[in-house]
Amino acid sequence: MNESATLAAQQVELTHAIDTVWVALCAALIFQMEGGFALLEAGFVRSKNAVSIIAKVMIDIMFGGVAFYLVGFGIAYGKSNGYWAFDTGIMEGDLGLGLTISNSLFWFIQMGFAVAAISIVSGGVAERMKMWSYAIYVAIFSAILYPLAANWVWNPNGWLALRGFNDFAGSAAIHAMGGFAALAGAIVLGPRLGKYNEDGTANAIPGHNLTLSAVGAFILWFGWFGFNPGSTLGAVGKWDLIGSVATNTFLASAAGGMATMLYTFIRYKKVDITMVINGVLAGLVAITAGCNVVSPDSALIIGLIAGTIVDIAVVVVDKMKVDDPVGAVAVHGVNGFFGTIAVGLFSQKNGLFITGESAQFITQLIGVSVISVFSFATTFAIFMALKKTMGIRLSHKAESAGIDAVEFGVEAYTTFE
Amino acid sequence: MNESATLAAQQVELTHAIDTVWVALCAALIFQMEGGFALLEAGFVRSKNAVSIIAKVMIDIMFGGVAFYLVGFGIAYGKSNGYWAFDTGIMEGDLGLGLTISNSLFWFIQMGFAVAAISIVSGGVAERMKMWSYAIYVAIFSAILYPLAANWVWNPNGWLALRGFNDFAGSAAIHAMGGFAALAGAIVLGPRLGKYNEDGTANAIPGHNLTLSAVGAFILWFGWFGFNPGSTLGAVGKWDLIGSVATNTFLASAAGGMATMLYTFIRYKKVDITMVINGVLAGLVAITAGCNVVSPDSALIIGLIAGTIVDIAVVVVDKMKVDDPVGAVAVHGVNGFFGTIAVGLFSQKNGLFITGESAQFITQLIGVSVISVFSFATTFAIFMALKKTMGIRLSHKAESAGIDAVEFGVEAYTTFE
Amino acid sequence: MNESATLAAQQVELTHAIDTVWVALCAALIFQMEGGFALLEAGFVRSKNAVSIIAKVMIDIMFGGVAFYLVGFGIAYGKSNGYWAFDTGIMEGDLGLGLTISNSLFWFIQMGFAVAAISIVSGGVAERMKMWSYAIYVAIFSAILYPLAANWVWNPNGWLALRGFNDFAGSAAIHAMGGFAALAGAIVLGPRLGKYNEDGTANAIPGHNLTLSAVGAFILWFGWFGFNPGSTLGAVGKWDLIGSVATNTFLASAAGGMATMLYTFIRYKKVDITMVINGVLAGLVAITAGCNVVSPDSALIIGLIAGTIVDIAVVVVDKMKVDDPVGAVAVHGVNGFFGTIAVGLFSQKNGLFITGESAQFITQLIGVSVISVFSFATTFAIFMALKKTMGIRLSHKAESAGIDAVEFGVEAYTTFE
Repeated sequence: MNESATLAAQQVELTHAIDTVWVALCAALIFQMEGGFALLEAGFVRSKNAVSIIAKVMIDIMFGGVAFYLVGFGIAYGKSNGYWAFDTGIMEGDLGLGLTISNSLFWFIQMGFAVAAISIVSGGVAERMKMWSYAIYVAIFSAILYPLAANWVWNPNGWLALRGFNDFAGSAAIHAMGGFAALAGAIVLGPRLGKYNEDGTANAIPGHNLTLSAVGAFILWFGWFGFNPGSTLGAVGKWDLIGSVATNTFLASAAGGMATMLYTFIRYKKVDITMVINGVLAGLVAITAGCNVVSPDSALIIGLIAGTIVDIAVVVVDKMKVDDPVGAVAVHGVNGFFGTIAVGLFSQKNGLFITGESAQFITQLIGVSVISVFSFATTFAIFMALKKTMGIRLSHKAESAGIDAVEFGVEAYTTFE
Repeated sequence: MNESATLAAQQVELTHAIDTVWVALCAALIFQMEGGFALLEAGFVRSKNAVSIIAKVMIDIMFGGVAFYLVGFGIAYGKSNGYWAFDTGIMEGDLGLGLTISNSLFWFIQMGFAVAAISIVSGGVAERMKMWSYAIYVAIFSAILYPLAANWVWNPNGWLALRGFNDFAGSAAIHAMGGFAALAGAIVLGPRLGKYNEDGTANAIPGHNLTLSAVGAFILWFGWFGFNPGSTLGAVGKWDLIGSVATNTFLASAAGGMATMLYTFIRYKKVDITMVINGVLAGLVAITAGCNVVSPDSALIIGLIAGTIVDIAVVVVDKMKVDDPVGAVAVHGVNGFFGTIAVGLFSQKNGLFITGESAQFITQLIGVSVISVFSFATTFAIFMALKKTMGIRLSHKAESAGIDAVEFGVEAYTTFE
Repeated sequence: MNESATLAAQQVELTHAIDTVWVALCAALIFQMEGGFALLEAGFVRSKNAVSIIAKVMIDIMFGGVAFYLVGFGIAYGKSNGYWAFDTGIMEGDLGLGLTISNSLFWFIQMGFAVAAISIVSGGVAERMKMWSYAIYVAIFSAILYPLAANWVWNPNGWLALRGFNDFAGSAAIHAMGGFAALAGAIVLGPRLGKYNEDGTANAIPGHNLTLSAVGAFILWFGWFGFNPGSTLGAVGKWDLIGSVATNTFLASAAGGMATMLYTFIRYKKVDITMVINGVLAGLVAITAGCNVVSPDSALIIGLIAGTIVDIAVVVVDKMKVDDPVGAVAVHGVNGFFGTIAVGLFSQKNGLFITGESAQFITQLIGVSVISVFSFATTFAIFMALKKTMGIRLSHKAESAGIDAVEFGVEAYTTFE
């Protein structure tokens, strides 16, 4: 039947086209989240460091993206022995993922994820780290560290993938990975000048521009509707899934923000808008692993828990005298961890609270623990090595003057005239 | 013919996928308009209230979105008796709308519309309303008020739908609904301190950051290309319509801005950029009902009229001593009303000016009048009830100090250092 | 075979739908780049002119878009004699482009390109040009000048199209066109007051808000993933191309930013973030012509070169005493020129460096030279004519006071309270 064969071939072509449209546009949404990271972080720091944090996010994109092109992609998606791969030239050939999109488009969306992961770190090391040391770390993270985690979780032969680890859009591989790297970086760098007093109490260092941070938050929120639904990597045969992923993503974010609003109001008598923003993000981070397998009601609950956890985690991190200027550890690290294990609790298929089974929960716990420890340990070691060689921290004089003046020779805002 | 049947089944699958890609991405564009509302409004208010207005838009999303999930969706799209419905569990089952997308994706895009409607109100009550009272109103509006209007207009059994009311993307159900609610809210709240003098003259209270408002305006403008074209709810069989909707949407917005530019220049000798922004938005609001049935030339004319009406309406509202800090009534209320009846004037199918028939015009006039009165009356009553119970307005002392300091304990901008 | 015919017809319908979804959303991304232009330019000028530059970009959209609707589209895409066309009513009928989308959707995406081209000019004439003179120039540029270039390059009968000129998304027809118009405009206007000293040295006039410029840059960067991939004008049969266009676009932008970062660090001992932003944009501009025919490695190289050229070009333009406040000539003009000839050097099909053939290189050089000279000469003449008639430059007094106060009667930022 020639006619049928022609029609069938054309249907394959149409499938390629549909899935390409979907992934290309979701990838663009993911990419624009970088603008969100930049502005969120810029608003949360002092104006004397606003340019430098934007520059760090640009370094995330430029050094991170190019390192992921030259090295990282082959480590993540080459032929894996379960733990790593090293293939060059995988822009051609079958990656074993059943892709209906081109390898170069797959690279483009994966680059967006890689760059998102490293951008989490830029917040944790804000206001005190040397630019070039940071650029080197970015290259290493994006060439090797993140790709290893991606290999374990998403490569068809990765050891976690083979165990049935469910990390749909990356609560573990992206957010816990980035968040625990931020923790290690913040510890090795030490707190900003003036953050902690001799008696151990902490001083708040308010950000300089909350409306700018809000712009960033809305951009991130928007982008997450590419981040999570786009992780389907196609629409044909998955159109039902796309709807529920989008709905779950929204409900968890709204619930995360509501929980923070109530928590801060009850506890401090005032709503803390910075924490509400972080609560929304915490809900988004937490639903990222399980948005494909939980019910909308579970998504609401996961969001409520995430929005509460983040409030506590910010305080705990501060009590540990770890200076994390934008809350990267609490938002991405802690809630990436929580979101990953929440799959094992709330999954419609095999969640402990839904079905009584514990196997998935254990797999989730193992996976995210290994990734978190791996990220923390390797980042700690690299930061120590950089510290001993080229140095990672600006001089006290430079830090007081502001990174913008010292490393960039500008001010973000000139006298209004 | 097995082969044909297989091919036909696969074509249905492809149709689902295409329409899902279209609606999911348009819904994301609609959602990101919330960032636009937040920044537009934040820039138009004083800096002491910038955080609070952003918080109000976050409340729109969080309380509005969750209320629409828990209650509103079932009222809007459950089995209607013509006036209302109350179905739970309509995430499954056929809604009678001939949808090719999943119910959860349909929920997601409808949530975007619901949240847009309530966000219009946040502008009208800016700079003086208590946060928690506002949150309660948001929940009621999104759970009941807006869903009733949506039921009448878009539910297949709604009384206006059955009469052939044409409100393609919601000039009536969203914009007039939100705009007349804003009017009622602004009246019950009363004007901001210092807005009107004892002799009846008004003082301008300029916004603190016009570049921020411009960011917001561009975000809204962008999002409208999801709002209107996305209201097709699918692309298969509607690809021609999508092109003309996008073109009409653009032309009306450009003409709206041009009209305002000329109007303010002729009348005040200076171009009023705040009004140009509002003129663009007025054009967008006015074309929203009829973008599917008018010609591009008519879209230009509708935009020119809308851009002129908004200039007059802002002055009239001010003369009525209704303090609407961002022009929500003039932009969304008045032009939502105009845009709805403009369908009856300019529709290619049955517009009075095009075909000489008046039936559609009368239907449009009835529909938008009922919705406007309904929105005004119910909101007035709810605001009065809230006023008598928990109170709706901040103390004069708190209003003078700024909502940011009083309810949030922060300033949007800290001293630059 | 009735069944087969029905299935085949439905496949045509699906193709229309897929390509429409793709183009409609890419067109929306292109449109939102206007917000990027506005904020990038607003941040780079002094705060006393921030409103005026945003107004100029709104004029680009409003006057440019409407002029392109009324006149320009017919000149660009009507039946061409090789050099021009003048067709009205081409919203219907076959344009000879093999389109699978509606003519009105094609108009919508082409309007986005037209408005992008004119927006480049708004930067070059910033801080000193009269608003209404600018509006007239915008209308002429969008009605006639840009459409002629588009006719030559993209009309199926255009003389450059017939010669095999490859300008995929418009390095020549949009960026060189806009950049050399900006050069002519800046020359005729003369430098801003205080820019050059009597001894010939130049004074830096720093922008007032680098975080705002960064917002703009991220918006532009995001939009470019509609600009370049969307120039496929469809996804069916082009899904492989979309992936490589996106990847090439990213790699060139990242390399452009990295080159600038290194260049400014080596040369000035500090990284110049303004130039890094311009380096990213230079990489984007330069890859725009050839993103469909070069390899990813070539894209990296093109980006590195573009990021270096832009640093030199900014200095050369300044040395020529041409005051281009935002670097429009260096970014769009010079790199649009370079990007166009880079196709002749790096094309996989017939690039000089890849295949040793020189024919394509010569075609590219001729095409972009003609377009650049045409744009410069016509703009120069129009600006001279406007200068002699209604005047193009604000009075010195007005320029000192700031355009915002003089033409708009506002300040972008009011005293914080």
